[in-house]
Amino acid sequence: MQLPAAVLVTDVGPRDGFQSEPIFIPTEQKVAVIEALAAAGVRRIEATSFVHPRAVPQMRDAEAVMARLARRPGVRYTALVPNVRGAERALAARADELNMVVASTESMNRANVNMSVAESIAACGEVVRLAEAAGVPVACAVSTSFGCPYEGAVPPERVLDIVAGLVDVGVAEVSLADTIGVANPRQVAALVAAVRARWPALPLGLHFHDTRGLGLANVLAGLQAGVTRFDASVGGIGACPFAPGATGNICTEDLVYLLHEMGIATGIDLAALIEVARLVREVVGHDLPSHMLRAGPRPRLPAAS
Amino acid sequence: MQLPAAVLVTDVGPRDGFQSEPIFIPTEQKVAVIEALAAAGVRRIEATSFVHPRAVPQMRDAEAVMARLARRPGVRYTALVPNVRGAERALAARADELNMVVASTESMNRANVNMSVAESIAACGEVVRLAEAAGVPVACAVSTSFGCPYEGAVPPERVLDIVAGLVDVGVAEVSLADTIGVANPRQVAALVAAVRARWPALPLGLHFHDTRGLGLANVLAGLQAGVTRFDASVGGIGACPFAPGATGNICTEDLVYLLHEMGIATGIDLAALIEVARLVREVVGHDLPSHMLRAGPRPRLPAAS
Repeated sequence: MQLPAAVLVTDVGPRDGFQSEPIFIPTEQKVAVIEALAAAGVRRIEATSFVHPRAVPQMRDAEAVMARLARRPGVRYTALVPNVRGAERALAARADELNMVVASTESMNRANVNMSVAESIAACGEVVRLAEAAGVPVACAVSTSFGCPYEGAVPPERVLDIVAGLVDVGVAEVSLADTIGVANPRQVAALVAAVRARWPALPLGLHFHDTRGLGLANVLAGLQAGVTRFDASVGGIGACPFAPGATGNICTEDLVYLLHEMGIATGIDLAALIEVARLVREVVGHDLPSHMLRAGPRPRLPAAS
Repeated sequence: MQLPAAVLVTDVGPRDGFQSEPIFIPTEQKVAVIEALAAAGVRRIEATSFVHPRAVPQMRDAEAVMARLARRPGVRYTALVPNVRGAERALAARADELNMVVASTESMNRANVNMSVAESIAACGEVVRLAEAAGVPVACAVSTSFGCPYEGAVPPERVLDIVAGLVDVGVAEVSLADTIGVANPRQVAALVAAVRARWPALPLGLHFHDTRGLGLANVLAGLQAGVTRFDASVGGIGACPFAPGATGNICTEDLVYLLHEMGIATGIDLAALIEVARLVREVVGHDLPSHMLRAGPRPRLPAAS
């Protein structure tokens, strides 16, 4: 089995996860989770989102989160921004990278940010130009790359067209997001191969939800297709509030367990990460889908003789 | 991605699943679940176990289950047997196939059936000879093929030795079982490749538990390695009562969803199978890990234009 030697895991829990929690999480608890993730060896953390406070009240303390967290050298603290206004706030808050989102379909993009896909790509270009001046890279996720709750199956050609638009406006990285958890491994292999064939040097990430249980099988397909960047959320928290029926991201600790068991390096201390998931469970106050929280990693016994 | 065109799914829920339920399930409910599985298109069902009633009280109605179920043409009703005495009972009850189990380690085999591995392989041979006279094939699972709760990592050579012993005594099929849910996809690919290289014509199955969330990723690795036979349990019920920390089998409906989404035929009606899982949830009276029960399959909308 051909697999990469190392993977960059981005924990999106503090943003994609917390944003779906109905009760406001105090800023100091958000900061504690981010700092614990960094201490566990997570090198890239989506720390918050600079959206309008009325759109996502959970993220109304974005500036405070970024200001209060003790930054650890070697860790990149990224922020989601919906537009130029959000980017200005994120840059002022010293985000290390900016993340944007464009949906694969007009219906989803309209539901998400009330813009056309072309307008969103243009907005990415504006944000790239703004961020360039500050030396900050911009990544963009193509949401619903594997299927849309409003329009169903999404032709791969449409995803490729959107990636082409994003590359044209200068994004530094693209990720393909399975926002509603409908991807399957064969589809992942095909779409990744198509993107990598056309843009072999483009940093490419994958963002899966485990709605229908295929999250880690999709990761395996992505790894086999050469992808080395994956999003996940600690404890498996998170769902897109605008996508009907969506459930959580794949669990970071389950992902890291999969990777380490196959000999793929992440730089993350799995035992410490499971402790962060335990902290997150206390913070959100409800059960989480994490397998590592329930069963723990494979017991380390001496090899049978 | 190279994948087989069709897969034989064996539902082991009525045996491996129900056997881990602490409260006795009335015979008529067991029969109802088996008949519903067959009606949903499952072509091979592990219906019961002819163990001693004191060892597994849940299976004390094995004869009654086999006698009462209305057999559907084209469906094979298999039974687990621990020894010759169990095989005699299973053959008298007209089981279509007999399943035996040998553990990969002496500790596990001793805990499971209080015999040495060599004694268990010899017992398989006795059962094969007995069943041959009745024209009934015998399959054998190598439990803890990917790791043992008592002895830890299991060298692949040991599993190969056991498979060689089983082939020598005439079993018709071998399956590699991840009894405690510690397998990873790279390991699955390697062990399957080793077995298939040495016995290319041997019917080979895989039996995974989803203890640490890797069940379907392991299935994907097995499919890519050419395996076309997989065990699963409806609703994800089941655990080995002798293996500390083990949790349920992979869910049949999640497995079938994965297979169908990748274009692999099973002959199973997924919607009907999800209804069987709902019935099983009522029968066992507790929540189940099934993703299909919670989220349902991917919504079928017209393709986006």
